[in-house]
Amino acid sequence: MNLMTADPLVLFMPSGKRGRFPLGTSVLDAARQLGVYVESVCGGRATCGRCQVSVQEGHFAKHGITSADDHLSPVGPKEERYDRVRGLPDGRRLSCSAQILGDLVIDVPQDTVINAQVVRKAADARVFDRNPAVRMCYVEVEEPDMEKPLGDLDRLLAALATEWQFEDVEVDFHLMPQVQSILRKGEWKVTAAIHKDRDDDRPRLIALYPGLKNEAYGIACDIGSTTIAMHLSSLLSGRTVASAGTSNPQIRFGEDLMSRVSYVMMNPDGREAMTIAVRDALNGLIDKVCEQGSVARTDILDSVFVGNPIMHHLFLGIDPTELGGAPFALAVSGAVKLKSQDIGLPMNEGTRTYVLPCIAGHVGADAAAATLSEGPHRQEEMMLMVDIGTNAEIVLGNASRVVAASSPTGPAFEGAEISSGQRAAPGAIERVRIDPLTLEPRFRIIGVEPWSDEPGFAEEAASIGITGICGSGIIEVIAEMFLAGIISEDGVVEGSLAERSSRILENGRTFSYLLHDGSPRITITQNDVRAIQLAKAALYAGVKLLMDKQGVNHVDRIGLAGAFGTFIDPKYALVLGLVPDCDLAKVKAVGNAAGTGARMCLLNRGYRREIEETVRRIDKIETALEPKFQEHFVAAMALPNKVDSFPNLAQVVNLPERKTLSDGGEAGGRRRRRNRE
Amino acid sequence: MNLMTADPLVLFMPSGKRGRFPLGTSVLDAARQLGVYVESVCGGRATCGRCQVSVQEGHFAKHGITSADDHLSPVGPKEERYDRVRGLPDGRRLSCSAQILGDLVIDVPQDTVINAQVVRKAADARVFDRNPAVRMCYVEVEEPDMEKPLGDLDRLLAALATEWQFEDVEVDFHLMPQVQSILRKGEWKVTAAIHKDRDDDRPRLIALYPGLKNEAYGIACDIGSTTIAMHLSSLLSGRTVASAGTSNPQIRFGEDLMSRVSYVMMNPDGREAMTIAVRDALNGLIDKVCEQGSVARTDILDSVFVGNPIMHHLFLGIDPTELGGAPFALAVSGAVKLKSQDIGLPMNEGTRTYVLPCIAGHVGADAAAATLSEGPHRQEEMMLMVDIGTNAEIVLGNASRVVAASSPTGPAFEGAEISSGQRAAPGAIERVRIDPLTLEPRFRIIGVEPWSDEPGFAEEAASIGITGICGSGIIEVIAEMFLAGIISEDGVVEGSLAERSSRILENGRTFSYLLHDGSPRITITQNDVRAIQLAKAALYAGVKLLMDKQGVNHVDRIGLAGAFGTFIDPKYALVLGLVPDCDLAKVKAVGNAAGTGARMCLLNRGYRREIEETVRRIDKIETALEPKFQEHFVAAMALPNKVDSFPNLAQVVNLPERKTLSDGGEAGGRRRRRNRE
Repeated sequence: MNLMTADPLVLFMPSGKRGRFPLGTSVLDAARQLGVYVESVCGGRATCGRCQVSVQEGHFAKHGITSADDHLSPVGPKEERYDRVRGLPDGRRLSCSAQILGDLVIDVPQDTVINAQVVRKAADARVFDRNPAVRMCYVEVEEPDMEKPLGDLDRLLAALATEWQFEDVEVDFHLMPQVQSILRKGEWKVTAAIHKDRDDDRPRLIALYPGLKNEAYGIACDIGSTTIAMHLSSLLSGRTVASAGTSNPQIRFGEDLMSRVSYVMMNPDGREAMTIAVRDALNGLIDKVCEQGSVARTDILDSVFVGNPIMHHLFLGIDPTELGGAPFALAVSGAVKLKSQDIGLPMNEGTRTYVLPCIAGHVGADAAAATLSEGPHRQEEMMLMVDIGTNAEIVLGNASRVVAASSPTGPAFEGAEISSGQRAAPGAIERVRIDPLTLEPRFRIIGVEPWSDEPGFAEEAASIGITGICGSGIIEVIAEMFLAGIISEDGVVEGSLAERSSRILENGRTFSYLLHDGSPRITITQNDVRAIQLAKAALYAGVKLLMDKQGVNHVDRIGLAGAFGTFIDPKYALVLGLVPDCDLAKVKAVGNAAGTGARMCLLNRGYRREIEETVRRIDKIETALEPKFQEHFVAAMALPNKVDSFPNLAQVVNLPERKTLSDGGEAGGRRRRRNRE
Repeated sequence: MNLMTADPLVLFMPSGKRGRFPLGTSVLDAARQLGVYVESVCGGRATCGRCQVSVQEGHFAKHGITSADDHLSPVGPKEERYDRVRGLPDGRRLSCSAQILGDLVIDVPQDTVINAQVVRKAADARVFDRNPAVRMCYVEVEEPDMEKPLGDLDRLLAALATEWQFEDVEVDFHLMPQVQSILRKGEWKVTAAIHKDRDDDRPRLIALYPGLKNEAYGIACDIGSTTIAMHLSSLLSGRTVASAGTSNPQIRFGEDLMSRVSYVMMNPDGREAMTIAVRDALNGLIDKVCEQGSVARTDILDSVFVGNPIMHHLFLGIDPTELGGAPFALAVSGAVKLKSQDIGLPMNEGTRTYVLPCIAGHVGADAAAATLSEGPHRQEEMMLMVDIGTNAEIVLGNASRVVAASSPTGPAFEGAEISSGQRAAPGAIERVRIDPLTLEPRFRIIGVEPWSDEPGFAEEAASIGITGICGSGIIEVIAEMFLAGIISEDGVVEGSLAERSSRILENGRTFSYLLHDGSPRITITQNDVRAIQLAKAALYAGVKLLMDKQGVNHVDRIGLAGAFGTFIDPKYALVLGLVPDCDLAKVKAVGNAAGTGARMCLLNRGYRREIEETVRRIDKIETALEPKFQEHFVAAMALPNKVDSFPNLAQVVNLPERKTLSDGGEAGGRRRRRNRE
C-alpha cells in the first residue's frame, strides 16, 4: 500500500488521464471526474457489469506509480454476487464497487462483452474512445403517492436528475402514453435511454425499458453511389457485431452521379423514386445486420450516415438538381440531426440519425468522414487523401490547415470509358506485369489465385472466363506499358514496336496493345490510354491546386480511400502520376475510411464535434474557378508528369528516361536521362 | 427638444418600462433593450408595419418627461413609402425607423392591425403583454457562391444569426427538402418562423416562406368534459380573430369523467376511441375558427391546450385508468410540448403544441390555466377559485402561497341526480324566487326573457316548453326554499307547511315543493335537497381544508370559474354555503378562465414559465387523506353551515335564525338568533 500522505495517484489507460483521489473513491467516480469514459448502465449497483476494469500491476517509473491489485478494495458482496450470477473474467473488477486504496494503473478494456455475444466480423481493428450520444441509465423511481402528486413521468425525470445528473430532460412524445405501463411492468425500476449529442443539448429521453436493459446498438453507414456498407455496433461495448453491404439500387436510374441528377431533372418522380430506392436498400441492410448480430431492430437507438453530396441529398429526400450545375449549391452543408423514422428508417421509435457535414458541393459527408478517420487535421505531416470515383474528393492538410477540392475525373477509373473495361468482378484482369524485353504480359484475374503464367491458371480461368479489365488492372497495364516503353511519357502507343512484337496492333492511325488474345480479345487502345490520362490529369491537377494553396511541393503521406484505393497498387498510382511523389511506405490504402469515420461518430459524439469544427475550418477550393487548373492539368497529362519529379518513386522503379522541358512540344521516343535528381 | 446633457428618457406604456438612450437610437431598439415587446417581422426594413407606436404628447410630471411628437425624428423615406403603400394610421410611427431625439412617452398599441382584418368576436376584453413562442423573421440570404460552399440552409441560418441574433438555430427536418425552392422562389428573401419557448431553448426553424410573410396564428383551447372552446389569435397582433365551441363528443362514451374512465377500463379500444373522438372534434373546431377568421390552417404555427386531468390524458393518447383510483397517479404532470401533427392535429407541419401542467390527479391543466388567468399567486388578497364540475377543482392562495385540491362533488350541480334536473338548455328553469309569505314561486326559463309572473311569459314559454331545472336553478330554488323557511338549516322540507300551502306535497315519509305544475310537473324533493347538500358539503369541506392549510378563516375574493360559475348567482352560492362567506362585491364569475389562461400562454411564453413555476410551488391537498375532511363535511351539510358564520352575506340577505350548536343533533324549525356576529 502507498503510505504517502498525498491522495493515491490513479492513471487510466489507454487514455493516459491521471489524477489523485481520496482513499475510498470508487474507480468509476475517479474515471468520471477525469472524463475517462467508462460505461455503466445500472448506476453503480453492480448489476450491469458494464464498468469492468483491470489493474496493471507493477512499478511504472515513468509515472511514479507502483500499482497492485490490492490497491483496490477487496471484492465485496455486490461484486461477488455479480461474479457468481453473471461471471466476471479473471482480473476484472467492477469499477463502481472497487475503491481506490493506493496508487493504481487502471486498464479500461474497450471490449467488455456482457452477453457472450459472438462477433461475426469486425468493421476494422481500430478501437476508439467511446462516448456515445445515447446512454442507458437504470433508475429506481419513487412510487406514486397521493401526498406528492407529481406525475409518473415527472418522478422518473426526478430520478434521472438525482441518479444520473441529467437535469431538465426532454421527453420524446411517443413515450408519454407508455410511461405508466413500463414503470409498472418494471416495478418502478426502469432503464432510460438518454440521447444527448452536443454538450449543451438538453438530454432527451428517447426510449424506456422495464427493469435493467443492458444493451443498445447503433448503425454506421456509408452510402456510396455504387455500394452501401453498414456496421452494427454495440453502443455499450463499442464492438461491431455485424457488417453488411449491398449495391446501391439507384444504379438502375443511372450508373454515375451525374446521370442520377439528370434522371431527377428529367423525371417528375425521379427524386422520390431514388430516395425510396436507397431507403429500401438501407432497410434491407438493417434487417441483414440485425439478423447477423441477433439484435432486435428496436434495440438500435442511434445511427450515423455519410455519403457524397448527391447520395446525401437523395437519402434525405432533397432534390439534388442544384448540385448538377454551378454554383453547385448544397441544400444543407452542416451536420443534420433527425429522428430515423422521419426518413422512413423505422427502428426504435426514438432512434436518432446523425449525418456528417458536407465539405462542399462535390466534397461530401463521406470525405468528411474519411478526414475524421485518417485525421490529417490531427497530425503534423502533410497528408493527402483521395477518394476516387466519378468525382475524386481530395483533402490535403495537417494540424495547421486543411484544404479540400473535388476533381472531375470521370468514370474512366471505374472502367466505364475503357474499351475492355468492366467492374471489379470475377474474370476481370486486376494485376498486370509486362516484360520490358519481350513485351509479353502476365496477369491475374479476380477469382483465380495463380498468375496467368503459373501452373493451374488456365484450368481455373477456363471456368470463370477472362472477361475484361477492371480499374486497378487498367492502372497497372498502362503503367507497365509506360515502364516497358510501349507508350511514351505523352501517352502515345509506339507503333514502331509492332516490328518487335505481335502484341502491338495497328488500328488505323493509332496502335493498341494486345493484353489477352481470347474471347473476348482484351486490348488497350490509344483511346483507353487517353481516357486514363485525362482522368489522372484531372485528379493530379486538383491535388496540385491544393498543394499550391498549402504552399508545399511535396506531401508526407497519402491515403487512398474507397474500393478503388483499396485495390490499386500505390507504386503504379505513382508511376501513372495519379498522385504526387511520396515515400511509398507512406502511401496506404485506407479502406472504407468514410465508413470508419461514421462508426467513430456513432461511438463517440466528441468526434461529431471534431468533424463539424474541422469542416468549418477546411478551405474549399473550387477547381473550376482556379486559373492554374488548366496549366496543372496539361502538365499532368504526361506520365508521370511533365514538370514534377518523382524522386521517391525513382528509387524503387526504373522510370523511362525523361525528355527535357525544351522538348516539351514534341511527342516521341527519345529519352535523355533517368529521373534521379 | 430636450436640451439636457443627459440622454433622452423614454417611457414605454402600458408596460411602464423606462430608460435613457443615446440620441438617434431607434424606438424599436430602445424597446428591445428594455425588454418591451414590440413585434417586428421585417427586421427594421420598414416593410412589415408591425412595429407601430404612437407618442403621448404632454408633460408627465410624475415621470419628469415632456413628450412631444417632434422628439422623434421626422418621417423619412422608408416610413413615407410604407405609409403610401400600406397606410399608417394617424399618429402612428414605425418604431424601427423613428429615432429618439428627446424625452418621450411611447404608447405600444396592442392591436396593430395590418391587413384590416375583421375581428368577429373577442375572446375577452383583456389585453396581455405579448411575447409569443413563435416569431416571424424576415431575412435576406446570401446567394450561393462557388468560393463559399456553405449550403443554402446554412446561409439562411447565418442570416438569422446576423439579423435576428438567433444563434445555433435547429431546423425541423421537414423543411430541409424545401429550403432550396423556397429561397429561390423568394429570390433569397424569406420569412422564417422561429420557435423558442424557454429562454434557454435553442431556437428552432419551424416554417419558412418566400418573401415577407406578415402574419402567423395560434389557437388556444380548453377541452372540457362537456364543452370544448377554441380561440384563434394572431401571434403578431395578439388579436383574437375567431372563437368557436362544440360539445365534447366523448359524451357518448360517458356523461361524466368517471364513466369515461370506466369505459376505458371496460373496452379494449375505449381509450383510442375517445382520443380519436376528441381529436376529431378539435380538428373540426380548427376548421371552424379558420373559416370564421379567413385564415389558412397552415398559417397556424402554435397551439395551447388545457383540460382536466382525464381530458388531458385522453387528448394526449394516454390511458387515464390510473386516475380512476388511488393514488390517482398522473402519467405526466409537467407541461407537455410536442408537434401538433404527432397528436393528429395537422396544421402547418411545424406547428407546435404546448399543454399546461396539471396540478394534481384531480386538479388539471384547466385549473392551472384558470390560476394563471385569475392570478391568486400575483396578489396579496387571499383568493379562492372554484371550478365546479363532477369534481370541483379548488385553488386558494395569494402571493405567499397557493394550495389546491379537488372535491368529489358528484354530478348533482349539473342536474344529474335531481328529479327534475336537466342540462342548461331552452326550457330549463334557471332563476327562482319564492315569496316567504305565500310560498309562491316565480321563475325564469332559458330562452324566455320575462319572469313567469310577467306579461308575455306564458305565450313565449308555450312554444319552448318548461322542461326541467338546470344547475343554477337548483341552487336558487333550494336557497330560496331555505330563505322562505320551507327547508330547515339541516335541509328538511317542513311538512308542517303543507297546511299553509298547496305547494308543499307529501311523498310518503318526506315532503317536496311544487315549483311548476305543468307537464312535466317540476318538484323539488327531499332527495333533491339531500343531493345538493352532499355536493355542496363536499365542495365546502375541500375549501375549508385549504383554508386550514393557509391558516385563514376567511377569504378576500372568490372566483367562480366555468359555465356553472358563470350562471350561478353569487348570493345564492353563499346562501347555500357552497363557498365561505365573502364580500359579495368580490365574488365574481370569471367565465372560461381556463381558456383565458391558455390564450395567455399562446401569446406570451413568459406566462408558460409563470404557471410552470407556480404549479411547482402549489401545495396539493388530497382531501381523502385529510382527517378533518369528514368533520368539515358534516358541518357543511347544514345551510349555509353548522359552524361557520356568514357575516357578509347576512348584511344583504335575511338569513333564517340559526340554531345554537348545542341543538346540533336535532333537526327542526326553532330559531334563536340571526346570524349577525
